[in-house]
Amino acid sequence: MIKIVVDAMGGDHAPVEIVKGAVLALQEKKNFSLIFTGDEALVREELRKYKYDASRVEVVHCSEVITNDDVPTQAVRTKRDSSLVVGLKLLKERDDVAGFVSAGSTGAVLAGGIMFVGRIKGVMRPALCPAIPNASGSRTLLCDCGANAECKPSMLAQFAVMASAYARSAYGIKNPRVGLLSNGTEQHKGDLLHQEANALIREAKNVNFIGNVEGRDIMYGDADVVVADGFSGNIALKSIEGCGKTVSDILSKAFRKSFGSRISYLFAKKQLKKLKLMLDYSAMGGTIFLGLQKTVIKSHGSSMAKSITPSVLQAVDAYEGGLIRSLTESFENLVSQEGGDE
Amino acid sequence: MIKIVVDAMGGDHAPVEIVKGAVLALQEKKNFSLIFTGDEALVREELRKYKYDASRVEVVHCSEVITNDDVPTQAVRTKRDSSLVVGLKLLKERDDVAGFVSAGSTGAVLAGGIMFVGRIKGVMRPALCPAIPNASGSRTLLCDCGANAECKPSMLAQFAVMASAYARSAYGIKNPRVGLLSNGTEQHKGDLLHQEANALIREAKNVNFIGNVEGRDIMYGDADVVVADGFSGNIALKSIEGCGKTVSDILSKAFRKSFGSRISYLFAKKQLKKLKLMLDYSAMGGTIFLGLQKTVIKSHGSSMAKSITPSVLQAVDAYEGGLIRSLTESFENLVSQEGGDE
Repeated sequence: MIKIVVDAMGGDHAPVEIVKGAVLALQEKKNFSLIFTGDEALVREELRKYKYDASRVEVVHCSEVITNDDVPTQAVRTKRDSSLVVGLKLLKERDDVAGFVSAGSTGAVLAGGIMFVGRIKGVMRPALCPAIPNASGSRTLLCDCGANAECKPSMLAQFAVMASAYARSAYGIKNPRVGLLSNGTEQHKGDLLHQEANALIREAKNVNFIGNVEGRDIMYGDADVVVADGFSGNIALKSIEGCGKTVSDILSKAFRKSFGSRISYLFAKKQLKKLKLMLDYSAMGGTIFLGLQKTVIKSHGSSMAKSITPSVLQAVDAYEGGLIRSLTESFENLVSQEGGDE
Repeated sequence: MIKIVVDAMGGDHAPVEIVKGAVLALQEKKNFSLIFTGDEALVREELRKYKYDASRVEVVHCSEVITNDDVPTQAVRTKRDSSLVVGLKLLKERDDVAGFVSAGSTGAVLAGGIMFVGRIKGVMRPALCPAIPNASGSRTLLCDCGANAECKPSMLAQFAVMASAYARSAYGIKNPRVGLLSNGTEQHKGDLLHQEANALIREAKNVNFIGNVEGRDIMYGDADVVVADGFSGNIALKSIEGCGKTVSDILSKAFRKSFGSRISYLFAKKQLKKLKLMLDYSAMGGTIFLGLQKTVIKSHGSSMAKSITPSVLQAVDAYEGGLIRSLTESFENLVSQEGGDE
């Protein structure tokens, strides 16, 4: 049985919500087990609250925690007995461990992932790739959304390859449509980085490039994959989050105001629930860190149990879909193509 | 009485909706009159549909139209008798003309604005500055959102100065809070451009800088002004538009489905209307092109009358608030400061 490591100490609501969410995931799927890394006494205390198959849960004690106040690159070097570093090492070293989930410091997950798990051969820079619910009822993969604030055109072309492989293996999309996030749909739009990236992605093999797309297309769902430099991808993601949160708050207020509007809520309930779920990024699960040799999922820092459960299942799904194999093959082809061109 | 020039031929619904929207604006405020530029026969035909004070409407005939298929910089040079070029020249040449409104090609409005109206002394690059409704019930000014895809740090510092002057004169905000759009709130976040811009804005006089802000803060409303390079500002704006439109569509569907939900709509109507209005960027009015010697307002290409009316009033308000004087003074101070430093 494969195992998923969960960093029990990372996140604003650790370990309470982390343990709860992960244990709930055990009920959803029966084909995996959990390894928690963290303060064993605290984790065991939380575990006692739930009923679960004890043979599917292991706890590895760690004496340290990496917080958001730590400098990420320094923390992953010095806090060797932290729940994050120990977890990433388990992922790297043990063949039966298929994935790692943390709601801890993003910077530390990124730095630690590269340092301890390592990149797939040929990958220049791993990238964060969240799946954003869209108007057509599916998800838009946005890659990168913050791991790399400074990008080169060739990095953007690699993001297109990585996210396409992810769309195929984790979402079953046979020929994912890939757009490049820019300030207009015309090919000449954007700064030099994006103009050059457009040309490179256009030539990339196994990428179904549909050209430049705009910020609004992320939620319209006309592309399966939207490629972005980490700076503007992050701005797009958070702009959508801000709009979604604002709308959710106004809706909640609208239906709390009067008895009449509470009644009215009952009538429109199904659609409104769908909408709130769509806008609630905390329930979207985690963001995959694509390009590493094994699956690393970063859950939102403010994750409650309901975000941890889908994050854990996401790691299981990635294993079942053969994500890492698919990514590795994509880059083997890329490397051999490039080799052939020389 | 001051005059506002309206490009009657620009936009997807010109001249029908443009003329209608502008004439409706005449009823809202009594202290200005209109000059339409465009095909006189067509404009007069539309005008015949409405009741208005004929002494407040003038039509200047033009034989050409600039479309979205034209190359902007070339079109403003060659189509000298287009409604857009003739309108911008009237704005420049006549002292009684205070503003210009067009729903035509954005590129042509930008190129024509710089060429025929000219920049305020000291302004490196004019910028598009839309006012986005936010959660606190006011507006967030986002500057630049697309006029300048490639920016230098000093340009971003100027956007902070320009948008602050606009917030003071048009929105009555005494000490507008200015944030820099980046991929994190910490000062070191962002690429080199944004790190340098952060340092420059921090030192700018008459700018109340609150540091880096994230995409989500645009709609939260914790800053009055959000400064952005035109590339990522455009992505933020359109990401918000896409989220808003998607939510609006789902809401409409939710309340159309059944008799019960139509009844329910009545109860929550007020809040929902407020929400739809907030998300409907077509009703937001136009986007000001800041940094020119006179007020130029770009209305959305798909503008209907309900978008043109607020755009015309926005031009009147800018005049009444003394926007151009305030901008000119800001840059006089800036230039003399810089002179003093040398």
